[in-house]
Amino acid sequence: MKAHARGRLISVEGGEGAGKSSAMAAMRAAIVARGVELVQTREPGGTPVGEAIRQLLLDPAHGIVAESELLLMFAARAQLVREVIAPALQRGAWVLTDRFTDASFAYQGGGRGIDEAHIAELERWAAAIKPDLTLLLDVDVQQGHARLAGRGGDRDRIEREREDFFERVRAAYRRRAVAEPQRFRVIDASQAREAVTAAVLAVLDEALSRWT
Amino acid sequence: MKAHARGRLISVEGGEGAGKSSAMAAMRAAIVARGVELVQTREPGGTPVGEAIRQLLLDPAHGIVAESELLLMFAARAQLVREVIAPALQRGAWVLTDRFTDASFAYQGGGRGIDEAHIAELERWAAAIKPDLTLLLDVDVQQGHARLAGRGGDRDRIEREREDFFERVRAAYRRRAVAEPQRFRVIDASQAREAVTAAVLAVLDEALSRWT
Repeated sequence: MKAHARGRLISVEGGEGAGKSSAMAAMRAAIVARGVELVQTREPGGTPVGEAIRQLLLDPAHGIVAESELLLMFAARAQLVREVIAPALQRGAWVLTDRFTDASFAYQGGGRGIDEAHIAELERWAAAIKPDLTLLLDVDVQQGHARLAGRGGDRDRIEREREDFFERVRAAYRRRAVAEPQRFRVIDASQAREAVTAAVLAVLDEALSRWT
Repeated sequence: MKAHARGRLISVEGGEGAGKSSAMAAMRAAIVARGVELVQTREPGGTPVGEAIRQLLLDPAHGIVAESELLLMFAARAQLVREVIAPALQRGAWVLTDRFTDASFAYQGGGRGIDEAHIAELERWAAAIKPDLTLLLDVDVQQGHARLAGRGGDRDRIEREREDFFERVRAAYRRRAVAEPQRFRVIDASQAREAVTAAVLAVLDEALSRWT
């Protein structure tokens, strides 16, 4: 599968409380304003089967072993790529996704300790596509959790993990950004929302100028 | 993960209408009669998460791509091995399972055409265990389907595949039996039920005499 025929795939990554939703809303508006067809999606999910898998994954009642968690994430991803992302890119649309394969390296690799070689192998044949641009909204774990707490609502199965889990997730995300500087842009998400949005839009503008 | 500490893992494989249920009932009775603790399970399923995955997989309303189907099968299997099979074998119990990893080679490999190298890789780290004995109930595809039709009830998503799919499944099962003659025993499941049961119990007796 080619990365893209004419469209572009942009992923937004980050830990809990990093402000992904606000960043995506701002990006969406900026992309749509340019007259580009935009497909917005999320992981795990984005398809009927994927959303059912998401419910399984996030239900705090389930005790899911790490290997099963990783395979469920890639099952949802394999479906999303073939049912939504690849067809959209083929027809020239852009795709904006709330998390993609980097999240498996961060959560199931860094967080759960699964060997990265297994994840890389799954990436090759089951995901079979890489984003053109990945924004990493990076924020201190404690600050992110304070924002989560302010948001209210119940925590899902993964949000209930201990702090050291999220420290490993953050470290894995940052390692990936360092390893692929051309694809990644790291945003300091500890800033106020307006400053984060401005930084996100600046990154998007820079990418647009490279692509057009 | 060691194949077994003290217990034994026996899998029963075969296509639609091969008579797995009757064979398993007869084996179960014979094993329990020897005073051995027996855990009976099935794939996909056997755990709360695995049974939820089974529902997803078999629902005819879902359009599931081959890669996602394979990953869901292994997600259920990874959970089953760690939650049920490995603990049972560790405490010396025997485990009798209606299908195991060979079914992925047959259905997703043979049937769907997924590269066997991907399945073998998943087997190594996600299933991480091989049966001590595998019974393949082998029957002509048309004969098996005639039995299915006689059973009545709705067909699930996989049972609705076309005949050539099941021919490829059968061929893949038979190739695996030829490749691993020490683990596999092929039963001619075209015979009447009583003859199949007798053949199954003879295979079990032979295995028991090797193991004790």
